[in-house]
Amino acid sequence: MQFASDNWAGAAPAIVDAIAAEAAGSGPAYGGSDLDKAVEKRFSEIFEREVAVFFVATGSAANGLAMVAANRPGGIIFCHRDAHMIEGECGGVEYLTGGARLLRLDGADGRLDIETLKAAIAGLTPASEHHGQGMAISITQQTEAGTAYSLDEIRQIASIAKANGLPLHMDGARFANALVHANATPAEMTWKAGVDILSFGATKNGCVAAEALVFFDPAKGRDMPFLRKRAGQLFSKSRFVAAQFDAYLRDGLWLDLARHANGMADRLRAGLVDAADAREAWPTSGNEIFAAVKRGAAERLKAAGAVFHEWDRTIGVTVAEDETLIRLVASFATTAEEVDSFLATLGAK
Amino acid sequence: MQFASDNWAGAAPAIVDAIAAEAAGSGPAYGGSDLDKAVEKRFSEIFEREVAVFFVATGSAANGLAMVAANRPGGIIFCHRDAHMIEGECGGVEYLTGGARLLRLDGADGRLDIETLKAAIAGLTPASEHHGQGMAISITQQTEAGTAYSLDEIRQIASIAKANGLPLHMDGARFANALVHANATPAEMTWKAGVDILSFGATKNGCVAAEALVFFDPAKGRDMPFLRKRAGQLFSKSRFVAAQFDAYLRDGLWLDLARHANGMADRLRAGLVDAADAREAWPTSGNEIFAAVKRGAAERLKAAGAVFHEWDRTIGVTVAEDETLIRLVASFATTAEEVDSFLATLGAK
Amino acid sequence: MQFASDNWAGAAPAIVDAIAAEAAGSGPAYGGSDLDKAVEKRFSEIFEREVAVFFVATGSAANGLAMVAANRPGGIIFCHRDAHMIEGECGGVEYLTGGARLLRLDGADGRLDIETLKAAIAGLTPASEHHGQGMAISITQQTEAGTAYSLDEIRQIASIAKANGLPLHMDGARFANALVHANATPAEMTWKAGVDILSFGATKNGCVAAEALVFFDPAKGRDMPFLRKRAGQLFSKSRFVAAQFDAYLRDGLWLDLARHANGMADRLRAGLVDAADAREAWPTSGNEIFAAVKRGAAERLKAAGAVFHEWDRTIGVTVAEDETLIRLVASFATTAEEVDSFLATLGAK
Amino acid sequence: MQFASDNWAGAAPAIVDAIAAEAAGSGPAYGGSDLDKAVEKRFSEIFEREVAVFFVATGSAANGLAMVAANRPGGIIFCHRDAHMIEGECGGVEYLTGGARLLRLDGADGRLDIETLKAAIAGLTPASEHHGQGMAISITQQTEAGTAYSLDEIRQIASIAKANGLPLHMDGARFANALVHANATPAEMTWKAGVDILSFGATKNGCVAAEALVFFDPAKGRDMPFLRKRAGQLFSKSRFVAAQFDAYLRDGLWLDLARHANGMADRLRAGLVDAADAREAWPTSGNEIFAAVKRGAAERLKAAGAVFHEWDRTIGVTVAEDETLIRLVASFATTAEEVDSFLATLGAK
Repeated sequence: MQFASDNWAGAAPAIVDAIAAEAAGSGPAYGGSDLDKAVEKRFSEIFEREVAVFFVATGSAANGLAMVAANRPGGIIFCHRDAHMIEGECGGVEYLTGGARLLRLDGADGRLDIETLKAAIAGLTPASEHHGQGMAISITQQTEAGTAYSLDEIRQIASIAKANGLPLHMDGARFANALVHANATPAEMTWKAGVDILSFGATKNGCVAAEALVFFDPAKGRDMPFLRKRAGQLFSKSRFVAAQFDAYLRDGLWLDLARHANGMADRLRAGLVDAADAREAWPTSGNEIFAAVKRGAAERLKAAGAVFHEWDRTIGVTVAEDETLIRLVASFATTAEEVDSFLATLGAK
Repeated sequence: MQFASDNWAGAAPAIVDAIAAEAAGSGPAYGGSDLDKAVEKRFSEIFEREVAVFFVATGSAANGLAMVAANRPGGIIFCHRDAHMIEGECGGVEYLTGGARLLRLDGADGRLDIETLKAAIAGLTPASEHHGQGMAISITQQTEAGTAYSLDEIRQIASIAKANGLPLHMDGARFANALVHANATPAEMTWKAGVDILSFGATKNGCVAAEALVFFDPAKGRDMPFLRKRAGQLFSKSRFVAAQFDAYLRDGLWLDLARHANGMADRLRAGLVDAADAREAWPTSGNEIFAAVKRGAAERLKAAGAVFHEWDRTIGVTVAEDETLIRLVASFATTAEEVDSFLATLGAK
Repeated sequence: MQFASDNWAGAAPAIVDAIAAEAAGSGPAYGGSDLDKAVEKRFSEIFEREVAVFFVATGSAANGLAMVAANRPGGIIFCHRDAHMIEGECGGVEYLTGGARLLRLDGADGRLDIETLKAAIAGLTPASEHHGQGMAISITQQTEAGTAYSLDEIRQIASIAKANGLPLHMDGARFANALVHANATPAEMTWKAGVDILSFGATKNGCVAAEALVFFDPAKGRDMPFLRKRAGQLFSKSRFVAAQFDAYLRDGLWLDLARHANGMADRLRAGLVDAADAREAWPTSGNEIFAAVKRGAAERLKAAGAVFHEWDRTIGVTVAEDETLIRLVASFATTAEEVDSFLATLGAK
Repeated sequence: MQFASDNWAGAAPAIVDAIAAEAAGSGPAYGGSDLDKAVEKRFSEIFEREVAVFFVATGSAANGLAMVAANRPGGIIFCHRDAHMIEGECGGVEYLTGGARLLRLDGADGRLDIETLKAAIAGLTPASEHHGQGMAISITQQTEAGTAYSLDEIRQIASIAKANGLPLHMDGARFANALVHANATPAEMTWKAGVDILSFGATKNGCVAAEALVFFDPAKGRDMPFLRKRAGQLFSKSRFVAAQFDAYLRDGLWLDLARHANGMADRLRAGLVDAADAREAWPTSGNEIFAAVKRGAAERLKAAGAVFHEWDRTIGVTVAEDETLIRLVASFATTAEEVDSFLATLGAK
């Protein structure tokens, strides 16, 4: 009963097989292999346009380097207050950019509020050498609160971005989960909706370590080979990241893995409706659930071997005195048995 | 006949097996797993003292973060002019430190010259707000020229470092190869000789991606959890790096792999003595060889499928008009057949 | 009728005389002159303890370098949302620190709210490699809203700072105005209340360009000679800054200048009580006033030659449809005639 | 007998008068005054084309921000090994650029050697994510060795810069001295010869603190308002810098001041020819002289009140056992009496 996080999971067998196959061979280092290049092309096919793609070690690195590419002096990034960039990267964006600022904006359900965003941008317009200047908007899909932007919401945010000359970045640490949920194509959820740069995460969805930065206008990624190497993010044996992505993107494996994870979350959601000692704290989609659990039940779950994180950001939801807010994350490796055991421990209404 | 680099090689079977085994399980992310902790302890055993160890994605990251840990305002790092930090990291040290300076020092055979080092330090002593201040000495073991410092040379450099209050860093991208060649213990080649911080590379020697930063005084690595995370260098599925190191350090695998690589290089060295169309350009130890090859023979080698890099840094050796300087690197995966084919193509005297 | 800002004013005659006197002589550059050293000692007398003092070019530089001295990886600075560091320095703190974060906290009247501050610090405690760590608290005295912290409030904030191991910084761009208003000694308003680092501004109060960074524990300023020089903030002819401070601090000139400015503001405040077309928007002390002025009257003032800035940060005060919020700043150079003309233009109730 | 440095001098009376005049008035802060704008235009007249000009606090700041404007990831600046950027700014260029590298090049007499420069650039061409990329060439006019580039040499260097897509920066801390010596116009010595960015120093030549960064293509300075403010280099009372430049550039004062300084240096040079106990160590032009002085005579000079710096960079000149190498700098304030006393103390041949 491992629901702590999708990054607590192992790796999918096809991913491991790809690594093993690559281990037996040899080839150019630093991204120069045929496989690296083939996978880069594969990204263009997946996204239905020519993209520039750069493998990096972590999602934080992808986010940070995306912002380095968008950097402006006195630059300000508009993002939700719960964004991973703010809450979970130890100031990495600020460090890697040499001082860009993350402006924390409110928004219900973990999503940027459109009017709040507009007002924040207006408050910094026109750019001034005193207060600085906007440099990017960043959204997380799916969000840290387990919710997701609709394609229409992305388009609205993108149109604000364009109107203000700001690139729109999407932190897609759980991009596949959001995509599967929305039943959209990768193109629809990104550049067709106005996204300029994507942190494309695969680690959480069954890889060992495979993260990529995708520029939908390759010209905007022109400096990235230098930026990535300078940040210590160019793997010498890049082929092993390429091999993971090759397997991940082949025959829709990535979507299957996400579909499985989302399905397990759905099974959990469905069970919670009838659970005696727990309730969904707020509606989510994808593979994350936030639940308010009776304190006694939470203890029971732990005793039964369930693993999960308690959570302190409630997005405004009231948690009762006798409840604990917990986060539950399903992954490609979650089993129906785990879900059912978890639910059984909670009891039925 | 792949002699381009040890980072062109694949990965050793035991390493892949360890990844596969880890893939089937799950556990805490971000270095919190039992395996991560066990491997960290294993490093202390290997080095015969309590060390602080931090896994990172690349050797460049290890070097850069080592220098971040040693950082001082107006700080100057003393290193050999051919150091990887200077020649091969796109200014990563300068970037990650926010502006430390690498002072390029001469030295025959790719090694720092002791007198040159002393003079450079003396020229910046006492520290001054005008010219800055020394912050570290960095040496590469084995060096970029395929040579190695003797334990005594390391001790001499360390004593200069101590006398001047400078930490001594060792870039050990090919540490195992140097260790096996010197027939020394890890402790003898590092802290017993006065090394303070080690970039411990395993990727080139049979891993997929496994690099570690080792502080022989754990207190000096106190900020490193923050520094590593901030730089986007903390893997979420850190367990997979731990698993690689676990296999790598188990039963002396790492030394066996390096011994094999060095042995293949020795076989090549021995063959070159009698080769008609090539000669060792300068003496090296470990798994790298620099050879002056008749231009015609170089073409012949390529035609026969040999892969290698031409080299432009000669460390003062004269290369004749009709010769090309090339670098040959043996790895854990190099076979005797590859070496023999290579030599056969060169012809006998 | 110049009320735009105290940095629109010229310079006090005694300051200019000091520059002229220094111009006729010569002496060591870069702060090495007897005068530089004498003035540094003078600061220790003024503050009744040994301090380390560093002249810099601007208040932004003083604030930025204070934060560089307090820097920690993943470091977070707690300050009011309207702090000059946030609103008026183009990201200078973030840039000079290489990525520290300014956490914008609410607080009525431009002052940090104690409970908000406590909650923010608690939310980041214990330090974590994920969310980062607190590195400093910064308050502005007098604040950007023209208000001031009482000595007791400073002590409360300082005790929070101490309890959390955070240095307390005071941005004293208008320190003299606050001091005169509080009728406190420099020591009482700073280190006796728990302030660790002070940006001591003199430019706004009658100097040409004289700003200093004061460390009440000189050991904390140990690296500052390097940090200042590295940032391009060490004047070669530092003697001219020293000369300004020498005159400024001699015979209480600085307090007289501030007393005059505050007095002119008081005259304006008193007049506004009876003004027909304007009212104080919120109570301030020191030399700044925020007034809600009937739109017609604002136009009349401009036509009459009054110079002032319209203001958009209302700290919650309601400004009526037919009013404009303006800021009025008195300086050492403001005359009673200017004030009276200004009030006359507003008409009497 | 003050020959320590031109930045030990005071300030010219006209400069002080301009400050005093400005002190009596008031006007927009942060460079918005009519005077600021008029002086900016005056620079365009002086240089015979439209330029973008930015006042900053120090020459180090001008140099650093010039390089920030030219910044590229993995960027390498080609400059002479004795450049002030390297020897006298505590790593400011590296810090302000977030990690650009200064490549120390040799060259006789303190000037870049053309062939050495070409080879260094060739060695980094084409740009590579491994070794980085060139970002600028910087020369100092007059050099740190008291010598100067001829217009033709500047043109040669500029043509290399253009051929390699690199901006050419000139550190003109003693620009006026070099200009007067060359009997050239400001345009001829800069953009007409191919210089792109100039650090225009006035402090050493009679100002209190007046340094400017000049972009000969204003578009290249587009970001500079942000870059300058962000670095804490925008004076609030910028009018006082403008006032200094206004007086400095009026009626050729700046050239007169430099002519005087150079004339005093010439008087010293002439006297050294016949001096018993000293000789010019190498030929210089402008206002700096390097002399080899008999040790006894050096003591005699000090006893007589002469102030000067001993020097350790000999540019290859042999200094005898019984000699000391010293630097002598004349300024606008140096008197013939000082020179003659100095020479008298040395005795005649």
